[in-house]
Amino acid sequence: MSELIAPVATRAREASTVLALATRATKDAALEAMAAALLAGTEEILAANAADIDSATASGTPEHMIDRLRLDAGRVAAMAQGMREVAALPDPVGTVLRGSTLANGLELRQVSVPFGVVGVIYEARPNVTADAAGICLKSGNAVLLRGSSSALRSNTAIVEVLRAAAVSAGLPADVVALVPGDGHDAVKELMRARGLVDVLIPRGGAGLIRSVVEESTVPVIETGVGNCHVYVDADADLEMALAVVLNSKTHRTSVCNAAESLLVHQAVAAEFVPRVVAALQAADVTIHGDDMFAAHPGVIPATEEDWDTEYLSLDISARVVADLNGAISHIRAHTSGHTEAIVTGSQAAARRFTAEVDAAAVMVNASTRFTDGGEFGFGAEIGISTQKLHARGPLGLPEMTSSKYVVTGDGHVR
Amino acid sequence: MSELIAPVATRAREASTVLALATRATKDAALEAMAAALLAGTEEILAANAADIDSATASGTPEHMIDRLRLDAGRVAAMAQGMREVAALPDPVGTVLRGSTLANGLELRQVSVPFGVVGVIYEARPNVTADAAGICLKSGNAVLLRGSSSALRSNTAIVEVLRAAAVSAGLPADVVALVPGDGHDAVKELMRARGLVDVLIPRGGAGLIRSVVEESTVPVIETGVGNCHVYVDADADLEMALAVVLNSKTHRTSVCNAAESLLVHQAVAAEFVPRVVAALQAADVTIHGDDMFAAHPGVIPATEEDWDTEYLSLDISARVVADLNGAISHIRAHTSGHTEAIVTGSQAAARRFTAEVDAAAVMVNASTRFTDGGEFGFGAEIGISTQKLHARGPLGLPEMTSSKYVVTGDGHVR
Repeated sequence: MSELIAPVATRAREASTVLALATRATKDAALEAMAAALLAGTEEILAANAADIDSATASGTPEHMIDRLRLDAGRVAAMAQGMREVAALPDPVGTVLRGSTLANGLELRQVSVPFGVVGVIYEARPNVTADAAGICLKSGNAVLLRGSSSALRSNTAIVEVLRAAAVSAGLPADVVALVPGDGHDAVKELMRARGLVDVLIPRGGAGLIRSVVEESTVPVIETGVGNCHVYVDADADLEMALAVVLNSKTHRTSVCNAAESLLVHQAVAAEFVPRVVAALQAADVTIHGDDMFAAHPGVIPATEEDWDTEYLSLDISARVVADLNGAISHIRAHTSGHTEAIVTGSQAAARRFTAEVDAAAVMVNASTRFTDGGEFGFGAEIGISTQKLHARGPLGLPEMTSSKYVVTGDGHVR
Repeated sequence: MSELIAPVATRAREASTVLALATRATKDAALEAMAAALLAGTEEILAANAADIDSATASGTPEHMIDRLRLDAGRVAAMAQGMREVAALPDPVGTVLRGSTLANGLELRQVSVPFGVVGVIYEARPNVTADAAGICLKSGNAVLLRGSSSALRSNTAIVEVLRAAAVSAGLPADVVALVPGDGHDAVKELMRARGLVDVLIPRGGAGLIRSVVEESTVPVIETGVGNCHVYVDADADLEMALAVVLNSKTHRTSVCNAAESLLVHQAVAAEFVPRVVAALQAADVTIHGDDMFAAHPGVIPATEEDWDTEYLSLDISARVVADLNGAISHIRAHTSGHTEAIVTGSQAAARRFTAEVDAAAVMVNASTRFTDGGEFGFGAEIGISTQKLHARGPLGLPEMTSSKYVVTGDGHVR
């Protein structure tokens, strides 16, 4: 296997056996050292970032992509602050998850342990480099980072700073490493490095995530694609519904927990559709609607494709449904399993919606934007899992661990 | 996708949406009906099994394989009893795993939910058909079963009985289904049925598990390969060590939690090696040993390959190690991550071994044979996970669920 990955992954695995045994005090000291080093290294990091920006500009990268790539002193300070926030969180390693004394006297303890080596494949934003490194370090995992090639100089500078800080805190440098090379070969090898890499987390667009899921033999935690719906029920408070729809769609559009589709119960459609069309259009949202929506000026008739589109922009698909059943079956057909919301005053409707809709998060009378590690009080997240295995929803520190049974006897045999 | 799988998986998915909402009372009634139907259908099941046995005998299948295939009235009664035991266990669905009221007043609940559709790929024993169906039903999952083609008639008869029983209890027949066809094409399609099948669980030999892990795009829970070690420390009570080694190796040899390798601290080797060689040989165990072991008559010199071999027979590899570090690094190099045991009177050695050995279960002064859902008090298991994602160790009912966040507000927006 893997000319490019084997050496770096082997070093990461060795570093992970040291890191797995590190105390909270050591890990927090390393995070503090990393925060200080990021601040002290701001100049080098920004210089490397400027070189990335120059290359991207020269190759005609669109401005919104360049904006995601761009760092400034404030963004570097935010990375340092993130390290300190992770340091302040409880250690997720060593928690006794379950324990009992068996009938035969054996003591059974299920204890949280790090995965070992985590691979993170991500796009654009160089701040993910520091955020992912901090979360992995606190959860006792060595991390192999693979950002986009457009950010290679920035990521290299950040990782150099973090590695030196780890060493200064008494940990091996290889608790954090960048995957070498800038072609696709290294990513392919990383995805096949089963046995050396324990878990892969892709963070980025649907295409990246699909390719990792399809090609990886390393277990994957799928993150972040969100075709989120807001369903306005017959019994909804329509003022509340307007506020929830607007916030879900427009609070931030480029994120996975933004709403992409609006469903309205036919009983309130005559009153609600004109109001929500006006409100969305006043907020510069383009509506891709069914016949009832498309009867309004400026609304684009929706195609079949619209119901499955994660716009990540000021666009929303919208349709009227016959009833709650119609909403649930539309969502079942088109959900990406991220976040689905109902606005209703009916306890029965809320109960059915939360039971029957299959998604990482189901909101009742709340914006889809609340599906977030910070909002949920987890303090830090490495992404939002949309798969059912291992962890579903925001991935905080506890989700970055596995477990081990420790069984103690005094010569017990069967 | 998938001519063979799509229709049956689509029906399973539809059935799963009904089953996911079924109350415990309904599920337990279905399990009870299945138990009764297995008993009532014993004659048809045994007739189908006799036909499988005849074919297997005619094609020259070895006797130990035929034994695994063979059912009798007692084995059918045991399947029925298994259904009743699963019925008696708590419902793993609907458990509030975590819950809080956020600072803004949002109510957050993380609730256990079924996966949806589970695929189980297994070899030989037809009783797995009933056991897997019972565990999946209780955990609210529709199941697609794929046994070995040698057991096709037996499995078909069992599944027909179970489907009829499900219907009699008011559930869709398709909560349990056999994957159609008897070639490898259907298995290939099952492994690529991402979106229709939520989780795949392979149960069987290393070859089967490797091929599923390599080829599947559906998330996999890897089970059951066990290259389990027993390490006898310098501070071990040698009588206890003998008992643990013998039990781990000889209590049952064809199972994943049987010991396959023995490590002995050099400080006790001169005394312990002759005794353990004599005891193992008296129990008909063939030892594949290093120089110190191979000095004894009848011990076969070990090759490098032996350290990685899961014999599943009355064979064991054995070597002397310099110290605890030597034992830990040997285990790190050769473990399959299933169960590793230390026999020691030293608290310090036990603490280091349990912390540094990376496996689903680590035993201190207890036989490796205790890694088992029944022994752990879980009541039923569908296998023993040797992967780090989702669940590690025996897979009981709670491990057969995912989770969902339910967030309730009164118009909350960000």
